[in-house]
This record gives sequence, C-alpha cells and structure tokens, in this order.
Amino acid sequence: MRLRNVKNASEILNSSKYFVSSPEKYRGKWNTLFGNDNQIMLEIGMGKGDFIIGMARLHPDWNFIGIEAYESVLVRAVEKLDMMDLPNVKVLCVNAADIASIFDHEVEKIYLNFSDPWPKTRHHKRRLTHENFLREYDKIFKWCAAIEMKTDNDKLFEDSLCYLTTYGYKLDRVSLDLWSTDIEDVRTEYEIRFGMNGYKIKFLKAHKDDTCHQEASLR
Amino acid sequence: MRLRNVKNASEILNSSKYFVSSPEKYRGKWNTLFGNDNQIMLEIGMGKGDFIIGMARLHPDWNFIGIEAYESVLVRAVEKLDMMDLPNVKVLCVNAADIASIFDHEVEKIYLNFSDPWPKTRHHKRRLTHENFLREYDKIFKWCAAIEMKTDNDKLFEDSLCYLTTYGYKLDRVSLDLWSTDIEDVRTEYEIRFGMNGYKIKFLKAHKDDTCHQEASLR
Repeated sequence: MRLRNVKNASEILNSSKYFVSSPEKYRGKWNTLFGNDNQIMLEIGMGKGDFIIGMARLHPDWNFIGIEAYESVLVRAVEKLDMMDLPNVKVLCVNAADIASIFDHEVEKIYLNFSDPWPKTRHHKRRLTHENFLREYDKIFKWCAAIEMKTDNDKLFEDSLCYLTTYGYKLDRVSLDLWSTDIEDVRTEYEIRFGMNGYKIKFLKAHKDDTCHQEASLR
Repeated sequence: MRLRNVKNASEILNSSKYFVSSPEKYRGKWNTLFGNDNQIMLEIGMGKGDFIIGMARLHPDWNFIGIEAYESVLVRAVEKLDMMDLPNVKVLCVNAADIASIFDHEVEKIYLNFSDPWPKTRHHKRRLTHENFLREYDKIFKWCAAIEMKTDNDKLFEDSLCYLTTYGYKLDRVSLDLWSTDIEDVRTEYEIRFGMNGYKIKFLKAHKDDTCHQEASLR
C-alpha cells in the first residue's frame, strides 16, 4: 500500500475512542476493555479498516481488534470509525512481530487480508504466514489456532498453504475464487479494485488442533 | 475421458509384456517382477499413458506402475508402450479402491493426474483424494505417504487440499499455474489441450510423516 504522510496522525489517533495507545497494559485482560466475554477476533495488517468495520457491523456479538504497523494508514481507519458507533472495535498501532507482548491466549481467530506478499526469497520470513509468525500466534490463541486469509497474490497463497500445513495447520476450506463462493466476505476497497480487474481472490481457512487448550474440549 | 469401445482390448492387453493380468500375485514382491530394488512409483488413473511413459523415460532408475480402471483406455497406453522398450514400466487394469490387495507397503509415491473431479457432493467420496482412498493408500506406501497431484479442476483441487491436510498430509509445494514453474512436468495430451485453452494447471506435492516406517529414519 502506498504510504502518504498524514499530518497530525498521532493526534488524530490519540483523540479517538477506538485507538488503544498502550496496548501492553491490557495483555491477558482485553475482555475488561470491551466489558464482556465475547470472543476476540484479531486482524493483523488491518490497513484502512474496511474489513474490520464491516465484520464488526455484521457481528456485534464478537469483539474485533485490528493492528496496523503504520500510523499514516491506521489514521484512515480511525477517521472512518470516528463517524460510527462500534463498541466492539479497538485498533492498535503495533508491529505483528510484537503481538505476544500484547495478547496472552485470548484471541479466537486471526484474519490476514491482502498481506504484503514479500516476493523476494530473502524476505519470505517477513510474510505473516511464515513459521516465525505462526510461532508467535500460538502464544495468543485462546483455544485452537485458527486463521483465515485472503489474498490476490498467487505466490503468497501457494507458499502460505505450505507454511501453514508444515507447521501443523489443517485446511478447513480453500477457494481459488472467493467471489464465486457463498463464503462470508467483507470486501475491502483494495479487494474490490483487484477483483474488478479480473484478479481472483484466494481464500483459506485453517486450524491447528495441537494448540487447543484443555478448555476447548470442555466447551 | 470419453470412452470408446475397443475391439479385442483384452487380447491386445494380454499379449503385451507391459500388462500384468494377475497383479495380486505380486503383492509384496513387485521388485521381483522388475528384477531390481529401485523405487516403485504408482500412477492411479494413468489414462492413455503419456505421463507414465514420459516419466519412465526421464527416470530409468525408477520403476513405474500405472493403473487404469478401463480396458478401453488402458489399451491406448499399451499400444504406445508396445512400440518402445521400457523395462521400468508395468500397467494394470484395476480399480483404485482395490490397490491394497495388489500392493503391500512397497510404493514410494502416488501420482494423481487429472483425476475425475466428481463434481456432485454425493459423489465426492469417489474422488481419489477423499479420505476413503487416503486410508487405502496408507497400506501401500513403503516409507512416508507421498502424493503428487495435478488437475485443471479448481473445485477438486481446493477440496483435495482440505482432504489431504485434514488427513495429516503436509504440503511441500503448491502451484496454481504449473506451467509457470520449474517443477518437472511430463505433459499429457489432456494437459496440453487444457493448458493451451488458457486453463491453468494446478499442482500439489504432499507427504505425511506419521506413516513413515521405522526404516525411513535409518536411511
């Protein structure tokens, strides 16, 4: 995504009720911030927020936390959020590599939408489905590890299928053309642009049993 | 594949040195038929034989067995084979569901090329990557379970990714456009026809560790 410098980004973020400036404080107790015990869904790399906002409106009984590394991008999401009343959304400006310092076995599912494909081999370890990240994700899932991903990038998708299954994930659903299915999909500005240009959106849903906490079997 | 009745198919098959008419006899001792201990690769649904013939020529040190359920199709492969000298190829007219009565932990890898996609949900259990078949394949692999698959059918490919990983397979390589890669590929008549018409050939390579025999770790 092309980054534009946004004047007063920090000010805009800090004045929004949706933005959490010191997320480490809530590690292990995000439910207290939402004031309920609803499941917490995490979008890593939320960009301009179209997905998380759409999902939060569709599922008022789920809590959504979006993280985005760039203030100048996150501010676009916050500007939209500030015009709405969505008590089930919080957004953070943090790097994906740091999530284990922010969450402690309290996330139900991770969404990865149109993540950076990092095409060069030497950069593959920066991909959000690389084993280095999957290992961090293990530390934040409440029950089983559960990931949903969509992308327009074939190489990222192909390799992610290998990363995930090599790490122990099983695929619950795969689509090479998300728009042709009945899978629930909140389309982002980016997705619509690519989809309209004939690119097929790839989708996967995966989970990993061996990280299920004992409680999962009691549910 | 459209089936044509071939006169004297049985006669042609039975007079070929490539055709094994009573394959059950060799269960557990296929290496004796080849007269060596080279690895045995199995193509299930070999059709007119283009893949197995091409592979056998590329890899004279590997043995190839092709199975095909229909005599009228298999005879086309045998007609080609009879014009060649390929001591590392045998073909059988058997149903995929019966393979455990024909092999006993002696197959290195299974190839599934352009298998019938069985699009109707009630027929999914007939797909060669369905759990029902994966369970039979476990009985014939020598070391780890190892499957390579290619198809032009998106739905079969999507579902196969789920079937395989749910059953415990891990994906070693996935391509949504086999022709754009450097993966070794012997193209069949069918594949060329579909590829030339703009259909992208999907490819996967998968293995399953938990079926590795003890010997595998000693290699």
